[in-house]
Amino acid sequence: MWNFSAGPAALPREVLEQAQRELLDWNGSGMSVMEQSHRGKRFIAMAAEAEADLRALMAIPVDYSVLFMQGGATQHFAQIPMNFAGPNDRADYVVTGHWGEKAVREAMPYVKVNIAATGAGDDFRSLPPRKTWQLDPGASYVHYTPNETIHGVEFTDVPDVGEVPLVADMSSNILSAPLDVSRFGLIYAGAQKNIGPSGLVVMVVRSDLLARQGRPMAKILRYAEHAAQDSMLNTPNTWGWYLAGLTFKWLKAKGGVSAMAEQNRAKAGLLYQAIDGSGGFYANPVDPAARSRMNVPFTLHDSALDADFLKESEAAGLIALKGHKAVGGMRASLYNAVPLEAAQALVSFMRDFADRHG
Amino acid sequence: MWNFSAGPAALPREVLEQAQRELLDWNGSGMSVMEQSHRGKRFIAMAAEAEADLRALMAIPVDYSVLFMQGGATQHFAQIPMNFAGPNDRADYVVTGHWGEKAVREAMPYVKVNIAATGAGDDFRSLPPRKTWQLDPGASYVHYTPNETIHGVEFTDVPDVGEVPLVADMSSNILSAPLDVSRFGLIYAGAQKNIGPSGLVVMVVRSDLLARQGRPMAKILRYAEHAAQDSMLNTPNTWGWYLAGLTFKWLKAKGGVSAMAEQNRAKAGLLYQAIDGSGGFYANPVDPAARSRMNVPFTLHDSALDADFLKESEAAGLIALKGHKAVGGMRASLYNAVPLEAAQALVSFMRDFADRHG
Repeated sequence: MWNFSAGPAALPREVLEQAQRELLDWNGSGMSVMEQSHRGKRFIAMAAEAEADLRALMAIPVDYSVLFMQGGATQHFAQIPMNFAGPNDRADYVVTGHWGEKAVREAMPYVKVNIAATGAGDDFRSLPPRKTWQLDPGASYVHYTPNETIHGVEFTDVPDVGEVPLVADMSSNILSAPLDVSRFGLIYAGAQKNIGPSGLVVMVVRSDLLARQGRPMAKILRYAEHAAQDSMLNTPNTWGWYLAGLTFKWLKAKGGVSAMAEQNRAKAGLLYQAIDGSGGFYANPVDPAARSRMNVPFTLHDSALDADFLKESEAAGLIALKGHKAVGGMRASLYNAVPLEAAQALVSFMRDFADRHG
Repeated sequence: MWNFSAGPAALPREVLEQAQRELLDWNGSGMSVMEQSHRGKRFIAMAAEAEADLRALMAIPVDYSVLFMQGGATQHFAQIPMNFAGPNDRADYVVTGHWGEKAVREAMPYVKVNIAATGAGDDFRSLPPRKTWQLDPGASYVHYTPNETIHGVEFTDVPDVGEVPLVADMSSNILSAPLDVSRFGLIYAGAQKNIGPSGLVVMVVRSDLLARQGRPMAKILRYAEHAAQDSMLNTPNTWGWYLAGLTFKWLKAKGGVSAMAEQNRAKAGLLYQAIDGSGGFYANPVDPAARSRMNVPFTLHDSALDADFLKESEAAGLIALKGHKAVGGMRASLYNAVPLEAAQALVSFMRDFADRHG
């Protein structure tokens, strides 16, 4: 069976097997990892190792803090402006799909939002060219979404925004390819696509930004306080942190983000080729220069066939291919834990389905 | 091995065994529960069943909503005043230990806090009598902490605060005994003591309170929005929700909260009896009328013996007995998942230790 869910998504089989083996007796403790105090020696060592592995995988510079938070990316849509902008400050938002729009809406109570660029006029099928962005040099930060899971558009390079800190919601493409972290002020990601289970958010933040005052708020909402307590200001999601740690080890064993990048390119390449080569039976509307390697939305030439496609694909062990209602059709998510064989099986099924219904 | 951790705490063995069995193939799906879309039929059915089981266990009236949230109780120390008080409103806080103090500090940016009563003058060894509370009839709500995990004090009945909604942080004693939910405006609890793993917060809120405007804020911070979306406004902690559901089924099978209350009384009774009957070798400083059934702090007559006590108890399979640094000594947490045999083993060890070192 192959799971193409957009998130919560497939986890590496080896990670799940290890979690299963040690569910009742973790690390020689005689207890589950879920039953460990987060202040205990065993858990603290595991947590630090997970952070070190992530630092190694992403080549995170020393002047960046790593946080293991809760609330989903959506909570941080609100918490980011609280922390990094004062009540009268402005921030730039580049909107290239559903999640960018949502980030704007949640930020609005806390910062004056400037939509520096948007792909809305094109129904988010392409990326507004960098030279068209109306950036505000006085902005507290520039926010963008490097990969949009619903519209299936992805930036292939990091935009140059000058001295203003660049903030990226990488929920759906973190760890999918090498990245120059030093180009960013803040990277954050909900875990449930490329890191682990839902309920965990990983943040990588340039330490000087943590000194910003932001607006008056509770301590628990302040990133600097979490950083000062190694993300144990209050009880963290210990299971999520543990699973993330296992996934980081799995990634290292698989050759790290370079190996993932190669595999992700291959998987997406196969699928786009099958779509484009289907003689119009399948279609993906996205500008080829902006096509996502992580989430591939596609439609059938006759939407009356959608129900059959879903029924037959599921029977063939290809799970969760229904597209998001905002764009319809199908969607295959190809995160790190989805192997090449899954993409091959999908493409093979698609060709067969087209032959039978074409 | 018996785990007396204050939280994350022991989980029922049967729950862990079931989670282990179905970790790779949940509910006939061929995938882990962590890999399921929270919008999928299987997950939604499980989530609804967990809520129904909790409603049955706690006899929650129909005019109350149940939410499955994130962020730990600490985040809700801040979010509760945001939601239930306007920027110029006042709220009463009754402080009977460390967590009540923390609730006050996190609330202060969002509401005018009136400390209606505090046990600080007595080092939180007793509960301020209800008749001494200086309640404000114009308060938006009255907040208190029915059980304090560090100081080991617990209310045995629900205080009458008139028409002002009563808000209770029940992180450490939810589901430990029958409760008249209709006496409360809001009950909330971090899961990691009596419900499941950390990273999940369960809230039971009277629906009319959700209509309150609170202060201007992001949608993601608004409880009414979460309630309107059945706690799927964004991706919830799916693993935590699932484990909570298993724990609710375990509780039902064990006879529900009445059976738990009986067992919890028996466990705490054994331990307090051993302390009080130790001829001064052990001591618990709390007013007997306010002693917690969930968390029993105790000291040794000579703190030079603490290290030996911890070493020998751990060797005897009695885990996580070190007290919180705020009060020192030892602490045994006796949540629902800690069986009577654990308390018996602890008491037996304590008697033996006192004999050898008395």
